[in-house]
Amino acid sequence: MPKAGITPRVQDYSQWYLDITQQAELCDYAEVVRGCIVFKPTGYAIWEAIQRGLDDRIKDTGHENAYFPLLIPKSFIMKEAEHVAGFAPELFEVTRIGTEQLPEPYIIRPTSETIIGYFYAKWVRSYRDLPLLINQWANVMRAEMRTRPFLRTAEFLWQEGHTVHVDEADAERETLMILHDVYADFAEREMAMPVIRGLKTEKEKFPGALRSYCIEAMMQDARALQVGTSHNLGQNLAKAFGITFTDQNNTIQHAWTTSWGVSTRLIGALIMTHSDDEGLVVPPRLAPTQVVVVPIYKNDAERGAVMTAVARITAEWKGRLRFKVDDRDQLTPGFKYNEWELKGVPVRVEVGPKDVEKGSVAVARRDMPGKAGKSFVPQAGLTTHLEGLLAEIQQALFDRALRFRDEHTFEAKNYDELKETVERGFVRCYWDGTTEDEQRIQNETRATIRCIPLDQPGSSGACVYTGRETTRQVIFARAY
Amino acid sequence: MPKAGITPRVQDYSQWYLDITQQAELCDYAEVVRGCIVFKPTGYAIWEAIQRGLDDRIKDTGHENAYFPLLIPKSFIMKEAEHVAGFAPELFEVTRIGTEQLPEPYIIRPTSETIIGYFYAKWVRSYRDLPLLINQWANVMRAEMRTRPFLRTAEFLWQEGHTVHVDEADAERETLMILHDVYADFAEREMAMPVIRGLKTEKEKFPGALRSYCIEAMMQDARALQVGTSHNLGQNLAKAFGITFTDQNNTIQHAWTTSWGVSTRLIGALIMTHSDDEGLVVPPRLAPTQVVVVPIYKNDAERGAVMTAVARITAEWKGRLRFKVDDRDQLTPGFKYNEWELKGVPVRVEVGPKDVEKGSVAVARRDMPGKAGKSFVPQAGLTTHLEGLLAEIQQALFDRALRFRDEHTFEAKNYDELKETVERGFVRCYWDGTTEDEQRIQNETRATIRCIPLDQPGSSGACVYTGRETTRQVIFARAY
Repeated sequence: MPKAGITPRVQDYSQWYLDITQQAELCDYAEVVRGCIVFKPTGYAIWEAIQRGLDDRIKDTGHENAYFPLLIPKSFIMKEAEHVAGFAPELFEVTRIGTEQLPEPYIIRPTSETIIGYFYAKWVRSYRDLPLLINQWANVMRAEMRTRPFLRTAEFLWQEGHTVHVDEADAERETLMILHDVYADFAEREMAMPVIRGLKTEKEKFPGALRSYCIEAMMQDARALQVGTSHNLGQNLAKAFGITFTDQNNTIQHAWTTSWGVSTRLIGALIMTHSDDEGLVVPPRLAPTQVVVVPIYKNDAERGAVMTAVARITAEWKGRLRFKVDDRDQLTPGFKYNEWELKGVPVRVEVGPKDVEKGSVAVARRDMPGKAGKSFVPQAGLTTHLEGLLAEIQQALFDRALRFRDEHTFEAKNYDELKETVERGFVRCYWDGTTEDEQRIQNETRATIRCIPLDQPGSSGACVYTGRETTRQVIFARAY
Repeated sequence: MPKAGITPRVQDYSQWYLDITQQAELCDYAEVVRGCIVFKPTGYAIWEAIQRGLDDRIKDTGHENAYFPLLIPKSFIMKEAEHVAGFAPELFEVTRIGTEQLPEPYIIRPTSETIIGYFYAKWVRSYRDLPLLINQWANVMRAEMRTRPFLRTAEFLWQEGHTVHVDEADAERETLMILHDVYADFAEREMAMPVIRGLKTEKEKFPGALRSYCIEAMMQDARALQVGTSHNLGQNLAKAFGITFTDQNNTIQHAWTTSWGVSTRLIGALIMTHSDDEGLVVPPRLAPTQVVVVPIYKNDAERGAVMTAVARITAEWKGRLRFKVDDRDQLTPGFKYNEWELKGVPVRVEVGPKDVEKGSVAVARRDMPGKAGKSFVPQAGLTTHLEGLLAEIQQALFDRALRFRDEHTFEAKNYDELKETVERGFVRCYWDGTTEDEQRIQNETRATIRCIPLDQPGSSGACVYTGRETTRQVIFARAY
């Protein structure tokens, strides 16, 4: 029986997604600010968990955080030709301060390459200043035609890394290190979300980049979602803003820069990778609350005994489990179960008078709703049991998502096969077509090349579209 | 001998402050974005430490974080009469998206009462929904005539708490709890900065507030800096935005709201409370790096022995001390000492070949430059020694700041005494004047009433200006 307020996925996947965002109280629509949402506490707590996991990795790999201005002189955006073309239609412009009309408008950052490039040009003097490895956590704004909570909103939150290097090799090493050690590692280990690491085609790369890399995940409707990008910007930005350095031979050189980002879109990815018709499902390593304890009692005497047991049971949890005891008195256990299922808490522990007598508790797994996920566990050794269970759930969620992706990944030998299979998931195939070919396929199938996977077969075959022999495989899919 | 690049305080306090911000690499001037600065890594790391300390306290007192839109429909600001008057001249307006002229401009939030009030009106229905306790970490913008890094910048970073309550008593309890348990506790325990907790006068309160409370600190030039505010907004915001709830008697009532915030201004407060002519001084509890280890050697053989000792010495520091080993090979120890002194690392540990032989290290305190702060300490038991030393430094910084404030706090019995003493610090005196009297004194002395301290003597005396008998004391000072 579907849960009240949640449209089953099979009935309307898109509506299911919106229902989850509302029923789990992740966000509200900000109808008075075009294209924006409010991140409600449950949704924002997930973002804080994502930030923590990413920030640790960003710092562990030698980067420091900084903060640059929200506003960018409009002329800055115009300095880099591809960058202009990529962002111009999406810009929010500040033209007035108080009653003063500005001679040159500011734009609200859609991304910060240009303003940061301006400062890097001031700061970088010598090869000794490099590499310069800085990250920023910030809000950015881009007008969007159609908005969808977390996936596509006018204002979103993200981190953007901006680094400067002495040569192409070092910039490329950084770009790929971020892709693997920061983004893919975080997605797979913390979010339990398998990702494909790949290179974007010329058509799909970031405006102004030499090469764009990405991680792509499969959602439960078998569509692709780009969840992170890492760009080697070559010397393009450095040339537009004059980021130069004196090398070891005392020659002035243009530097090489990179930029990379992931955003609150990850919250959307999290929902669409793991959640079900009962509500949100959050992997234990990311969950703000990993275990919720629901005490069960009918009267004050029972309440006393149960709450004493709960206090004893949870006494050693601090520092080992992130937990909450739901001791709200006016609500029934059933109401509480429903609420915590909706909000995706990985494990529920129920403690009633019979459990107190028997020295056990009932444990319910969020990832396996119903009887299959329920068990009775002795109170002795419960903490260790729960730690093991959380690790097991983390792995189970990853395995399930990977199995789903495998079951929805196809090979295609020719365009007819591509057209047929891309309706159902990812299609891996040889590719030797042009940007125009890519565009034609997109027009005809609504599918795009998500990436050229870094993991290539090493063999060759006929291009799915042109029939030309090639060693390069790509992945086609319909994407968000 | 003053350090290169830093103007001594006695010579030009204002220039000293700017020099510290530049020489310690805390920020850069964003001359291309009016009134803005770049928070460089050293400065931003201090902000992250401040955020951590505050966020813990905000959550421990029952609040959750959320995130509301950056942009606010201009009409929202106009709904609350006092709010308009307070903020209208300072607003950054977005009038265009891409090529589209907006029918109604958006403003970049100068503070979020109005946009959050709009959502709270949607969310709050019943007394069961209250109290609603939400905090937001965000950037805000207000045009400023004169900017000064951290203290007064057009864009700044802050947290703003916004809460909703059933009655005045609960709103007042929240307002004061934040002032004491979050702001004053953080300022005194983490920042080692003594603060006076007080109530603002009608003239100085927040636009739209019923009552504004504040914490005020004394800087090393004996001027006051308001470092945090907590406002009981009464029913003003609720009435402007229709935040109502059904009470236990099924009657619809307007709610009571509060708002409270501290900002990156705290970085300025930190600098001006503790730093000296050698550079930044950061209290150990807040310091991103608490201990820096500088190895000393003349050749590879010495280097090997010293680095082995350093590895052994620091092996047990992880999780107990935040430390850095400065093993940069191309720089002299003297250069490194200078750099870490500039950046305010509380303790420096020097390890040279002789120290290795003797089984000791040299320890230097940042808060006591020169010989007085230097000692030789056995390697055995060093970790415990350093933990104790850091606690000692934390207390010493607080004590020094408190002593300075005490030495620069005066009493005044009449206006002549006030005028004379307010040149030199805080003046505590009885006050029974009007808002007009306050303004007149400000015009004549450039001093304002910083607050009516919560800690009142309980006695009475003659008002410093009117001579009327009163029980109320206030603090006058010149302020930033």
